[in-house]
Amino acid sequence: MTITNRRFVLASRPTAAPHEDNFRLETVAVPELAPGQVLVRHRYLSLDPYMRGRMSDQKSYAPPQPLDEVMVGATAGEVVESRSAKVAVGDTVVGMGGWQDYGVVAVDGATSPLRKVDATRIPLSAYLGAVGMPGVTAWYGLNMICEPKPGETVMVSAASGAVGGLVGQLAKAKGCRVVGVAGGKDKCAYVVDELGFDVCLDYKATPDPAAFQAALQAATPNGIDGHFENVGGMILDAAMQQMNAFGRIAICGMIAGYNGVPVPMAHPELILTSRLRLQGFIVSEQASSWPRALGELGAGVASGSLKYRETVAIGLPSAPGAFLGLLQGRNFGKQLVKLD
Amino acid sequence: MTITNRRFVLASRPTAAPHEDNFRLETVAVPELAPGQVLVRHRYLSLDPYMRGRMSDQKSYAPPQPLDEVMVGATAGEVVESRSAKVAVGDTVVGMGGWQDYGVVAVDGATSPLRKVDATRIPLSAYLGAVGMPGVTAWYGLNMICEPKPGETVMVSAASGAVGGLVGQLAKAKGCRVVGVAGGKDKCAYVVDELGFDVCLDYKATPDPAAFQAALQAATPNGIDGHFENVGGMILDAAMQQMNAFGRIAICGMIAGYNGVPVPMAHPELILTSRLRLQGFIVSEQASSWPRALGELGAGVASGSLKYRETVAIGLPSAPGAFLGLLQGRNFGKQLVKLD
Repeated sequence: MTITNRRFVLASRPTAAPHEDNFRLETVAVPELAPGQVLVRHRYLSLDPYMRGRMSDQKSYAPPQPLDEVMVGATAGEVVESRSAKVAVGDTVVGMGGWQDYGVVAVDGATSPLRKVDATRIPLSAYLGAVGMPGVTAWYGLNMICEPKPGETVMVSAASGAVGGLVGQLAKAKGCRVVGVAGGKDKCAYVVDELGFDVCLDYKATPDPAAFQAALQAATPNGIDGHFENVGGMILDAAMQQMNAFGRIAICGMIAGYNGVPVPMAHPELILTSRLRLQGFIVSEQASSWPRALGELGAGVASGSLKYRETVAIGLPSAPGAFLGLLQGRNFGKQLVKLD
Repeated sequence: MTITNRRFVLASRPTAAPHEDNFRLETVAVPELAPGQVLVRHRYLSLDPYMRGRMSDQKSYAPPQPLDEVMVGATAGEVVESRSAKVAVGDTVVGMGGWQDYGVVAVDGATSPLRKVDATRIPLSAYLGAVGMPGVTAWYGLNMICEPKPGETVMVSAASGAVGGLVGQLAKAKGCRVVGVAGGKDKCAYVVDELGFDVCLDYKATPDPAAFQAALQAATPNGIDGHFENVGGMILDAAMQQMNAFGRIAICGMIAGYNGVPVPMAHPELILTSRLRLQGFIVSEQASSWPRALGELGAGVASGSLKYRETVAIGLPSAPGAFLGLLQGRNFGKQLVKLD
């Protein structure tokens, strides 16, 4: 029996904001497995801001997504056929399967691109979020760059997002005062009431940089010691002006600049006058931190001490629209596509 | 016999570029020494870019220079009277004596503000430059922030200056390719021919940012791994665009922004895409590095392996003009005032 696979390829590169026409849905037959290969039925596709960068062919940390090839993306699913002794039918796995219903993966090499996961103790989808790349991103940037000490103040932008929500919870667990920034009243209420941040600033309520700066100043009477930046632009500028001497800033995202228009930093002289350290990072390059981070994150999710929220779009065809919504902040927590 | 002391106080704060009227020359009698005090006849006054920052009352790493008080500054001199058992007449000392011919210093506290130096092996003036604060600045920023490895490329701006010239020589000694940036043909020739840098770019020859960027690109075919920033603005923007992944940038000076006009950073997104680390520092806060740095720098100067140049203005009244010249890059190497 031939299995039919649906997939999205990158049809064209966006010149400004991306749109649905940049993606093309194709239907192809799943090929016969070769020895050492397995067939994975994807159950969840992860949508992440980094995909925006891959759609462009500007110089960046990763090569661009090739045109006419399956869009890159992390997936969680179930093995439905196997020609490998290493992976059995029924195993739950996460990998980089891309925007498609099925993935054919060679698993017999020295390092398998699939990671078997236990979906009984932790929900399968969490391996794409709190116990996956976004979780390790939060853990690494906070612990290895922001280096918060008890009693210090930590700030995080995109605070209701998959990464930001975890940054704040991990910082709270370390005894810090935590200030989040999110867009809208509902997200801010969630960040404070459900995630336990001390304060959350709604940047949509203060679109003027001076007003946002004033709100941040009021929210951080003792200044800011560690800042986890997911956004850039006005929020980073404001954070820098409020940083204490020897503050640390983890640069995780610069979504405000993704559409090709560079957003300058208003006050780079503060790096000197406040003796700041700013450091950019890509979590996939920090392999040595993953086991420890995943251990702590998995324990937190299993025990319920780490909370997260998901926005789930249904069916592969919904992926482009959900992705564009993510870039506009329309998701609430981790954006997933459930592949039924 | 009453000794007469001449001194400059800060008369007013500059609103844009500083001018000589911001300083006022006063003549006062040196008071009688109290027990535990010594009188130092200053022989050299150090002029440094940080003084520009102190003239303003903006928030910075140090409190502003108070109006009507003696301008801050490092001095090297000779003890001419002593009421302390710790310091004898004839001792050569460095301290923060300020813009004046004489200084009265209490030396019997737990930490004396004077450091005795050996002016036989190393010229007295060098303790204000290569074997003083500028030297330790170069040593700290290079070794502790840029962390150069043999074969890497290191860039430094203000390369003919007191700090920049040492940064490059120290990096060359570590086996790096070293690219300097300086203003003018003569300074660049000195940087290459006398200090041994591999290349020096004359930013005055390429005032257009795109032209400077192209020149830098040609000069750093393997990119840049460590950058020591003394200037900011166009030079920092260009360096960032040429940095390799995981590059380190020591932010030591932002002279381009000292006159109250912030100079934005054009491409902060490169911190993320190139995974850069930018760190500002103030060498006076890094006390634990001073002994090791001074040891290495002193040995290098005594043996002649570390070279430096001085621009010496004669007599205290020349200090304001020499300082304004320093801010405009009119000095060549370390700017001093010889107090005769």
